[in-house]
Amino acid sequence: MNYSMDKLFESVKSKGHVCVGLDTAAEYVPHRDKHPNDAAAVLAFNKEVIDATFDVAACYKVQIAYYEEMGLVGLYTYSQTLKYIRSKNCLAIADIKRGDIADTAIRYAKAHFSGDFSADFVTLSPYMGMDSIEPWIKEAQGAAQGAAQGAGAFVLMRTSNAGMKDFQYLQIGSDRVYNIVGDKLTELAKNNRANCGYGIFGAVVGCTQREEAALIREKYPDLFFLIPGYGAQGGGADDAALLLREGNGGVVNASRSIITAWKSSQVSAGEAARDAVIKMRDEILGAVNK
Amino acid sequence: MNYSMDKLFESVKSKGHVCVGLDTAAEYVPHRDKHPNDAAAVLAFNKEVIDATFDVAACYKVQIAYYEEMGLVGLYTYSQTLKYIRSKNCLAIADIKRGDIADTAIRYAKAHFSGDFSADFVTLSPYMGMDSIEPWIKEAQGAAQGAAQGAGAFVLMRTSNAGMKDFQYLQIGSDRVYNIVGDKLTELAKNNRANCGYGIFGAVVGCTQREEAALIREKYPDLFFLIPGYGAQGGGADDAALLLREGNGGVVNASRSIITAWKSSQVSAGEAARDAVIKMRDEILGAVNK
Repeated sequence: MNYSMDKLFESVKSKGHVCVGLDTAAEYVPHRDKHPNDAAAVLAFNKEVIDATFDVAACYKVQIAYYEEMGLVGLYTYSQTLKYIRSKNCLAIADIKRGDIADTAIRYAKAHFSGDFSADFVTLSPYMGMDSIEPWIKEAQGAAQGAAQGAGAFVLMRTSNAGMKDFQYLQIGSDRVYNIVGDKLTELAKNNRANCGYGIFGAVVGCTQREEAALIREKYPDLFFLIPGYGAQGGGADDAALLLREGNGGVVNASRSIITAWKSSQVSAGEAARDAVIKMRDEILGAVNK
Repeated sequence: MNYSMDKLFESVKSKGHVCVGLDTAAEYVPHRDKHPNDAAAVLAFNKEVIDATFDVAACYKVQIAYYEEMGLVGLYTYSQTLKYIRSKNCLAIADIKRGDIADTAIRYAKAHFSGDFSADFVTLSPYMGMDSIEPWIKEAQGAAQGAAQGAGAFVLMRTSNAGMKDFQYLQIGSDRVYNIVGDKLTELAKNNRANCGYGIFGAVVGCTQREEAALIREKYPDLFFLIPGYGAQGGGADDAALLLREGNGGVVNASRSIITAWKSSQVSAGEAARDAVIKMRDEILGAVNK
């Protein structure tokens, strides 16, 4: 079976490492008031950005909070955005950070690997333990209805926010909590490997703590990374490159710097997003090839 | 300002400790095929259960995974279920276990403290750190639109599943990870206290590890507990009572034993649910008054 992770691996090879974050607040949309409502404005905007970037972006990450905020019509826009990404033969990461156990986890997996909210990947939170992650594996392998391949996930490991020090950084002997998470994810990856060599589930590792980056990359060769923290949060191309592996093994997310690029530009929102993606892609490729 | 936590405190005094879990899968609904679709079947069933139990249950917990599984129509049922609970002047806990940072957390809070998905409480996951919890406090205090009082939350601390040993149980000096979470939540509670004395945000603590229960209750007097693990997962009334405090301080969740009680009964689904709630309420009150 081919997995979303295989397709992502190929996508990085041909299109670079940029993951476009569609954290689209209505106030980011130009001429927002020309649309019947905010949800319609966001959907039209997302389509414009996707049309303008799908050949230069590795994948898209859709942060569901921005859509839930708009209520039921917002979730219709969320659903249509995922559909539009996939209709372009591109990969959609549903940034939902779910984490629950047993039957509930299976329900969530069915919700996000099939039907209205079908995505290629989800993000998951590990606090409840591995029995909140493992049920997703089985559903991911079940060739989700409507999916061209087995699905995937990225589990929070070491995030890019300041607060990650509160719990992820707690010291357990010579390790930190996030290392224990990484070790468990490595076990899972070894038993559930995609054809590209990485586990079908990867990890979220921010590029904001440079001093640990090389060590983390070395310690978890089986895990493909979803890398937040680029740009506004302080991570640069060199930081992100340390988390990549043989020119692949990770995608780097940026949202606001891409989708609001039009605000400081003379061109359309789509063109401005495309320029921002290409610039970021080339910065990262430059750092990788140094 | 009055908070959801004040109302819950009063509700426990007058109606006991039972939190009815509306984790309603369509297959739990009798005569499911008499409804136009599963989402309609679940909504009608939820209303029947609420009608039959609202005077004997402290509150309701709605597990969103069961609704997301049905897609957009499922989320309409979710929205209508929350509305129906609140129309009865009862309290709705949105079991969504969200956890994300900064602007995203604010968006989530607006989504679940106002509008289509407006609830009295949410559940949150702490893995990303306290900057994923704190933004909710500000929104909770902002007297959410459509809410009669400032909202509340329960943050995952020590859950009732076997996998909680993976990360929550990791040893940090003489504490475990979940103690560090509890300590941080206590700080938050001391600075954000409801009139009843408890913090406006409480914690999720399962009643499945009896040996620690009394210690946890003693160590975290400022935290009101949402207590899962009753019944099928192994916790009993005596275990739950150890997590209560002066006859209050917690609600005990049960779902399947209540909403599928009709399957082993000769009475209607509503009556069977009511009987199950009263039996559980009295078991817990009996244990509290021992």
